Amino acid sequence: MRLSRYFLPVMKESPADAQIVSHKLMLRAGLVRQQAAGIYAWLPLGLRVLKKIEQIVREEQDRSGAIELLMPTLQAADLWRQSGRYDAYGPEMLRITDRHEREMLYGPTNEEMVTAIFRDAAKSYRDLPRTLYHIQWKFRDEVRPRFGVMRGRELLKKDAYTFDQDEVSARHSYNRMFVAYLNTFARMGLRAIPMQADTGPIGGDLSHEFIVLAPTGESDVFYHANWEKPAELSSVDFEDVDGLQGVVSGYTADYAATDEKRDAGREAEAGDQLRLSRGVEVGHIFYFGTKYSAPMGLKIQGQDGGEVVPHMGSYGIGVSRLMGAIIEASHDDKGIIWPEAIAPYAVGLINMRADDAACTQAADELYAQLQAAGIEVLYDDRDERGGAKFATMDLIGLPWQIVIGPKGLEKGVVELKRRATGERVELAPADAVAKVAGK
Amino acid sequence: MRLSRYFLPVMKESPADAQIVSHKLMLRAGLVRQQAAGIYAWLPLGLRVLKKIEQIVREEQDRSGAIELLMPTLQAADLWRQSGRYDAYGPEMLRITDRHEREMLYGPTNEEMVTAIFRDAAKSYRDLPRTLYHIQWKFRDEVRPRFGVMRGRELLKKDAYTFDQDEVSARHSYNRMFVAYLNTFARMGLRAIPMQADTGPIGGDLSHEFIVLAPTGESDVFYHANWEKPAELSSVDFEDVDGLQGVVSGYTADYAATDEKRDAGREAEAGDQLRLSRGVEVGHIFYFGTKYSAPMGLKIQGQDGGEVVPHMGSYGIGVSRLMGAIIEASHDDKGIIWPEAIAPYAVGLINMRADDAACTQAADELYAQLQAAGIEVLYDDRDERGGAKFATMDLIGLPWQIVIGPKGLEKGVVELKRRATGERVELAPADAVAKVAGK
Repeated sequence: MRLSRYFLPVMKESPADAQIVSHKLMLRAGLVRQQAAGIYAWLPLGLRVLKKIEQIVREEQDRSGAIELLMPTLQAADLWRQSGRYDAYGPEMLRITDRHEREMLYGPTNEEMVTAIFRDAAKSYRDLPRTLYHIQWKFRDEVRPRFGVMRGRELLKKDAYTFDQDEVSARHSYNRMFVAYLNTFARMGLRAIPMQADTGPIGGDLSHEFIVLAPTGESDVFYHANWEKPAELSSVDFEDVDGLQGVVSGYTADYAATDEKRDAGREAEAGDQLRLSRGVEVGHIFYFGTKYSAPMGLKIQGQDGGEVVPHMGSYGIGVSRLMGAIIEASHDDKGIIWPEAIAPYAVGLINMRADDAACTQAADELYAQLQAAGIEVLYDDRDERGGAKFATMDLIGLPWQIVIGPKGLEKGVVELKRRATGERVELAPADAVAKVAGK
Repeated sequence: MRLSRYFLPVMKESPADAQIVSHKLMLRAGLVRQQAAGIYAWLPLGLRVLKKIEQIVREEQDRSGAIELLMPTLQAADLWRQSGRYDAYGPEMLRITDRHEREMLYGPTNEEMVTAIFRDAAKSYRDLPRTLYHIQWKFRDEVRPRFGVMRGRELLKKDAYTFDQDEVSARHSYNRMFVAYLNTFARMGLRAIPMQADTGPIGGDLSHEFIVLAPTGESDVFYHANWEKPAELSSVDFEDVDGLQGVVSGYTADYAATDEKRDAGREAEAGDQLRLSRGVEVGHIFYFGTKYSAPMGLKIQGQDGGEVVPHMGSYGIGVSRLMGAIIEASHDDKGIIWPEAIAPYAVGLINMRADDAACTQAADELYAQLQAAGIEVLYDDRDERGGAKFATMDLIGLPWQIVIGPKGLEKGVVELKRRATGERVELAPADAVAKVAGK
């Protein structure tokens, strides 16, 4: 993409109302613009990151055996009366009346709807187990929206729902998601620690929050130092019940808990390996048995001919919130440092002298070569000062920068810079392409 | 995907409230389920089609030079007061009050918001021309939602907005979209005819509706018989102003108009080549000058230092509606016949005898081979009668079916069926894979 034809409104100064670094940087780097309290438009660069995060989430859900569907944003109030939650849910639920005075709501979550969909379709034990998920815009009418997309009102979430014939099977479904979540966050370059957590108003008896460590986090977290080692992908077979349980047991052997679930005994055990930090919740998984299936009349024919009320769980990832969490975890004083897997472009190509025919020709050629190599490149071809171009590239945090200027061209080289380390090397244009392509 | 692990609730009978064939088939084939009047959940098979339609729309928008962003579903009422439309818009606009009694709305369209976003970012003539688009869920509170997704309330639309320094430049932007739309629909196997149309409440002085012919269409349309030839992709250079105008002029030379824009003179010219049909609107493009930019204070510095009020246009495609339109245009009495480009899977693989070890082994192997060849395959591995499997495959309309049964296996062959023609051939499994892969 040529910057001269793109839409990237960066800002030099941070807006006064942005308190935390991810909010400031998302506004300054032209990723989002606020449209109302807690409601954001995703500008082109931000949307690219959002889609990459979403796609990683999707791929790991699919790999774990979950099936994607898409439920609507608006729901009928009557559906929520079936579970008893319509009256129980507080003012965070945005209640709406349509032109025919029907009571509706902008869904904050989908337990009721997915239970009704499954109830109307599933007939027998052959329809179990199943995991259904969607990636969908939700609304939570926060009383004080703040911290940008970290506590917004209109938010993109992945929510999955599991249906099993009994608790043993449900535990395996829970384990699938547990491992899928670890892999999801690891692919984004994040260490997200699963912590025992309260189940909250949603109910149930088994629950983990996945928390990214960040000094600006919203809550205190306590964990064993073993969690400080970098995240790794698990290449487990999701059908292998025992193998999966082993992976989950291995992870949960290391202590990690939120404030509400601290365990003095395990903390004493950890001794000087106990760590305290603040964290940002990016995912939450629950097993809640028949909390929704029973009152909503979801039942199927079991293998023995009897009636089975499926056990359920729900599993959320804050997709839009993740972008904030990643920036909190990966930035410096110049701007964002995107992990490669979710960077909006892999390379920023800077033409230092757009008014110089030789520079422009060399930059145009390199742009074409990078594109031909299948590399996503943002090309700053504008007639601007070099200093402004450098500042913009550092701010938007693409993993690589390639700089073409007249002095280097005389020597037949360009400058390749690694955003994360600041390391620079001069090399021939073809070698820069190869390096960026990982060859 | 193995059907034994999928979520595909097909129905034998059409629900009584479905009046048109696309609505009936979308329910029967397990593509959607109604959640409230005019509000649908997209089940896994339907979501796959929706995403393929969306992706074709996206690719052709990108190719034409448009830049994707994503605006939120909820908007502040005050934004619409800037254009004067908040009071002017009728009860189709879903008005919402949040917990702080702020007036909001679920966006039916985005002229105001995109104008405000562009106003806050664009400074000079260098920021023009630009085309911004998004693919987003919208809400129109139809008084009588019906015809399934064809006239739903929560709907997925692509809407693009062009910003130009004057009418001449705006015409070129309009032409880009005109050709992008023709290519978009052609890739889906549709002949969509651009027709002169009223600009309606949105205002402006240049407008085309893109209409797919269907006997169940919502309005009468009139066109020259030349439009009956199959759609072709234009491989035009979108930067070539004159070339693009030539393509548009070529297409519009053949008469086509909706009821409101009939032209007796041109109809007389067409003579016995004049055709009358009914049609389904799948896209609509408008040029409306400074209708929004002027009242909303969007102005930039022109090349001569003076002030320029950008000329705008808006360009919609009904992404969710397209699925209904495609089914209206492509089905038979057994079910849907998906065009290849948007089929949820390319191949349906049927194991006729899941209780026969040899059949199951052969089917499992072929399933693995198809997947290894990168072919999307839905594998009916269930222990069901062959008749039910055939009926389901015809209903869901995948382009190819491969049937594995004990008699064929003895001869070393499988049966390959083309859904569109019903044509069947027996051939070796490897040859079936090659044929389906287009080799």
